[in-house]
Amino acid sequence: MVGQIFVEMLKDHPWFKVSAVAASERCVGRKYAEVARWRLPVCMPSDVAELEVVEPTPKGVGNVDLVFSALPNEVAGRVETDFAEAGYVVVSDASSHRMDSDVPILIAEVNGPHVCLIEEQRRKRRWSGGIVTNPNCSTTALAIPLKPILEEYGIERVIVSTMQAVSGAGYPGVASLDIIDNVIPFIPREEEKMEAETLKILGSPSKPAGFKVSASCHRVATLDGHLEAVFVECTRETEPESVSKTLEKFSAEPQRLKLPTAPLKPIVVRSEEDRPQPRLDRMEGKGMSVVVGRIRQDSALGGVKLVVLGHNTIRGAAGLAILNAEYLKVKKYF
Amino acid sequence: MVGQIFVEMLKDHPWFKVSAVAASERCVGRKYAEVARWRLPVCMPSDVAELEVVEPTPKGVGNVDLVFSALPNEVAGRVETDFAEAGYVVVSDASSHRMDSDVPILIAEVNGPHVCLIEEQRRKRRWSGGIVTNPNCSTTALAIPLKPILEEYGIERVIVSTMQAVSGAGYPGVASLDIIDNVIPFIPREEEKMEAETLKILGSPSKPAGFKVSASCHRVATLDGHLEAVFVECTRETEPESVSKTLEKFSAEPQRLKLPTAPLKPIVVRSEEDRPQPRLDRMEGKGMSVVVGRIRQDSALGGVKLVVLGHNTIRGAAGLAILNAEYLKVKKYF
Amino acid sequence: MVGQIFVEMLKDHPWFKVSAVAASERCVGRKYAEVARWRLPVCMPSDVAELEVVEPTPKGVGNVDLVFSALPNEVAGRVETDFAEAGYVVVSDASSHRMDSDVPILIAEVNGPHVCLIEEQRRKRRWSGGIVTNPNCSTTALAIPLKPILEEYGIERVIVSTMQAVSGAGYPGVASLDIIDNVIPFIPREEEKMEAETLKILGSPSKPAGFKVSASCHRVATLDGHLEAVFVECTRETEPESVSKTLEKFSAEPQRLKLPTAPLKPIVVRSEEDRPQPRLDRMEGKGMSVVVGRIRQDSALGGVKLVVLGHNTIRGAAGLAILNAEYLKVKKYF
Amino acid sequence: MVGQIFVEMLKDHPWFKVSAVAASERCVGRKYAEVARWRLPVCMPSDVAELEVVEPTPKGVGNVDLVFSALPNEVAGRVETDFAEAGYVVVSDASSHRMDSDVPILIAEVNGPHVCLIEEQRRKRRWSGGIVTNPNCSTTALAIPLKPILEEYGIERVIVSTMQAVSGAGYPGVASLDIIDNVIPFIPREEEKMEAETLKILGSPSKPAGFKVSASCHRVATLDGHLEAVFVECTRETEPESVSKTLEKFSAEPQRLKLPTAPLKPIVVRSEEDRPQPRLDRMEGKGMSVVVGRIRQDSALGGVKLVVLGHNTIRGAAGLAILNAEYLKVKKYF
Repeated sequence: MVGQIFVEMLKDHPWFKVSAVAASERCVGRKYAEVARWRLPVCMPSDVAELEVVEPTPKGVGNVDLVFSALPNEVAGRVETDFAEAGYVVVSDASSHRMDSDVPILIAEVNGPHVCLIEEQRRKRRWSGGIVTNPNCSTTALAIPLKPILEEYGIERVIVSTMQAVSGAGYPGVASLDIIDNVIPFIPREEEKMEAETLKILGSPSKPAGFKVSASCHRVATLDGHLEAVFVECTRETEPESVSKTLEKFSAEPQRLKLPTAPLKPIVVRSEEDRPQPRLDRMEGKGMSVVVGRIRQDSALGGVKLVVLGHNTIRGAAGLAILNAEYLKVKKYF
Repeated sequence: MVGQIFVEMLKDHPWFKVSAVAASERCVGRKYAEVARWRLPVCMPSDVAELEVVEPTPKGVGNVDLVFSALPNEVAGRVETDFAEAGYVVVSDASSHRMDSDVPILIAEVNGPHVCLIEEQRRKRRWSGGIVTNPNCSTTALAIPLKPILEEYGIERVIVSTMQAVSGAGYPGVASLDIIDNVIPFIPREEEKMEAETLKILGSPSKPAGFKVSASCHRVATLDGHLEAVFVECTRETEPESVSKTLEKFSAEPQRLKLPTAPLKPIVVRSEEDRPQPRLDRMEGKGMSVVVGRIRQDSALGGVKLVVLGHNTIRGAAGLAILNAEYLKVKKYF
Repeated sequence: MVGQIFVEMLKDHPWFKVSAVAASERCVGRKYAEVARWRLPVCMPSDVAELEVVEPTPKGVGNVDLVFSALPNEVAGRVETDFAEAGYVVVSDASSHRMDSDVPILIAEVNGPHVCLIEEQRRKRRWSGGIVTNPNCSTTALAIPLKPILEEYGIERVIVSTMQAVSGAGYPGVASLDIIDNVIPFIPREEEKMEAETLKILGSPSKPAGFKVSASCHRVATLDGHLEAVFVECTRETEPESVSKTLEKFSAEPQRLKLPTAPLKPIVVRSEEDRPQPRLDRMEGKGMSVVVGRIRQDSALGGVKLVVLGHNTIRGAAGLAILNAEYLKVKKYF
Repeated sequence: MVGQIFVEMLKDHPWFKVSAVAASERCVGRKYAEVARWRLPVCMPSDVAELEVVEPTPKGVGNVDLVFSALPNEVAGRVETDFAEAGYVVVSDASSHRMDSDVPILIAEVNGPHVCLIEEQRRKRRWSGGIVTNPNCSTTALAIPLKPILEEYGIERVIVSTMQAVSGAGYPGVASLDIIDNVIPFIPREEEKMEAETLKILGSPSKPAGFKVSASCHRVATLDGHLEAVFVECTRETEPESVSKTLEKFSAEPQRLKLPTAPLKPIVVRSEEDRPQPRLDRMEGKGMSVVVGRIRQDSALGGVKLVVLGHNTIRGAAGLAILNAEYLKVKKYF
């Protein structure tokens, strides 16, 4: 799924062009159009359709400026290291390297300065390339609105319950027999990822943030868009109205740099009592805005509670990787 | 919907028999079979099918021992008062009287002794009957597992996010256009109810419990069964294993009295990593058991987090009302 | 729903501009933004949002060139007559006047010449305006591919089973309790409409077509897009391959006239074995193309069987009405 | 899925007891409870849970009276032959042997006498056991109501469009990404099976029936229960009322023999305008009755059209196999 979103989002990209597609051995040598079970309601871009699939090695891929990785976690670790050693900059959606201390989990609007870790990779690992990772899709939707809250009010504790879309599990992913008329209250390793990644992203390059995060993750019968109920205890006193304003005015370097994939507003605040809703709001900012609503006083933690929505395969995966790559390019990492 | 569950659950009840059905004016005088848009996958009991619908007044209903009310909240208040004044005991699923200081919100296993409030009603209001209410369906699923936790460990704070079934909104209720491929992150007045009712139930008859509750309520595309992600900060130190044992061994007066509708186990603990699931677990104990799973350490509140599931129209509505009525009968309130 | 699609599709229309919005009494005098429960995943056009709702009478609406009607059938009959008498051309999505002998059921690509019936209306009814209707949404998706088949091979019998989207029932429409994990094998009056309208459309202005149609209509849990399994017995011998070519090359006057809302191809033929699918194909041609697939030999009627898909609120309602209006304008009916 | 229904339905069977469970190599030697991903909302029977899985060979299975096969088609053919040769009677839900001329496709109520083909198997193939197959699940729901129509009115042509449940594709089967908000208008080889099997079942043991059948098969988002829109052209004149009576009074040998799994009524006729519905009606007769509704005049074929519903994993698979086995036992084939 994420690979297809990459292909679709890069179709008319002003800076990047897909010049090679790599996949597992059984696909190598065949055309992309033959091996991709295309699931999007738009046509496959014809130039990529004709590309011959290569093996995921520096030799197979050949002369490119940048590698996007949406590999399964069990193979991503080694493959990405090989590319970084061989001088490629890898922007990865896989989790293999996320918690490496010298690899940034990057959300360009949130922790852009963490890209300096690439220099540490090059120094310590003697790589000429480098690896930058995306957070887990459910982390992204959480970390973006937490950023301005942390800066303005300080954060002590965050409690989050997710209602995640089936596309987050890839294809074929969740069986229809499991999810029709049902909720699955478990996603393997998701809670641990959300808890650790959020702190790494919102901390300094060398040290995770000091507040506490607890997550409960659930799969529901939506196609796209992770919805999250978030409860935040702040260091300083908060009112829903001021938090709303803080979120609304949030803007960051990618917006100032007018990066091609940066949404006009990283956070869109809705004031209706029943929004955000996955189907109605997930494509806000072409799927790159996180939509926040129901900002209200919290009666247990003394802070605020809110509902956030992020498009999991766009803002939470391919779209963010492309935005991060744009940021790396501007910062001259490749 | 709830009216139909009442009719179905009372079909073969050993103590109670439906002898009158009351509804709004436009139904009066017609047979139940004609006015009920029967939605259950079993046949309508033939004796009730033949009953002529009467008006919801003491005069209309005539000589009965007990009145179950599943009226809309906007009419329930006055109608139930009329019955109580006229000497009837009313067991109500409506919210109108729940927060009256002399009306118990009763879960027979949790706060049986609160029935003493009926005597206060009779004394202060000069009623010869009385009113006992059910909690909101999402409150019931929460309050039952909190009871043994409160007794064993003490509770400081509870944070709960719900994923509620569409049957909770009645029929026709939630439009399919609103819920297919979607989640609605808002249910009118639901969060306020959960927060206030939980404390009233878990307090003494005269005073709500002293801990804090914060809820975020969401509607998902399940037919029956409210799933809730619960985070609990306890007064005393807790381990998931001991909480699990505490919940498993929980049993109360209705179980000891072997009330006909009391489940063998009010709480069923599942140890699998992906349970409870609404479709697979909602009928546990004929829909009267609350199913709890994923009991694990919470990293933000320092207590435990768990997932609970309660069948909203059975344990959360008609079934609980019947159980409460059985309890009231044993306690000789009618 | 259909009203909202009208507003959305007319937002940037090159020829038409929404200058008045009429609705039932309880909405009159309020802004459109206040009374419309907006259900689309894009923003409400701001100019229409500000319009004050008027009553659906010539006096209320005032000076406009054309009236689109998406009124409920029970009021549409009289209201549309009033407008036609008062000199307005009405393009209606309601069924009230469809079977009037002097009112065309128009699909611009299929039976454009039927617009001559307007002259009969003016002559016989002494109207200065006129009424043109859309077919029922399920009829449109059927009649478009039948047109070239009828011309090329002749038709003796058509058997069609539909799998219709919930948006076809309006909002709130189908209850989620009725459609989750279910199919409803009945849509009031739908089969009769499909059978009669198809013949009226495919006949001459004065006489329905002479073949036979039988329909079975079912509601399934899709949001948009009516899928139909169609079996056709032809007068002349047919091969799936030739039928496929006949459908693919079909083009009509709206395409030649390059009407703004006419899709490049009224019929898109898919050759994959598992297409068309509602979610993947309904937006083909911006929702204005009918997508046909699985064209294969039929073993019972000796003709072909095929699967067709039409977007019910676009091609089957608002979009077709706009296309028909464009056609009427070019033909100088207003 | 079907294996689990077998285990569940045989739990309290008066004649049969599960004494061995065979599965593919990677499961052999482990307990059934460990290898079955149990998907039913009731508990796994504890005696079967403890069985050690054996290999699907006569040697592995050992001394049993009867073998139920729900093997994948690609292995069923050879395995079932081995058992039949070794003297076992095999009742199979796989399609491998269905179209063998000496293997009956059996529906005990429809073509009981076809069991005589076992004698032909024994004579020609020198088997001491034998193979009896189930039809495809969608065929069963069609063939049962066609049987009394054929006998009473004669049949010339049948046209059927199916709306099939996801459980028909096994587990994990249909991806949720494919079916939420969607219909898939294709099920591999399903149409060919329905067309050929229906005629074989409704013919004599040696010759298929002479009428024509054409099918269009579609997957919809229901969990269980295949719904089918059926159009029938009869040899003799038909009225919906008389067809309704013919179907209602249908009863056959399994009912007269009071076989344990035979439903009281093989066909239940519903007179409501919107029934049968999969969720409400699939468990009729414990899932063993086919429910028929909407019997009405057909305007294209001059016969009747109707909607039929059969529970695909019970009446269409495990339940039918058990019923067929009961029939074989009474007929002394084992």
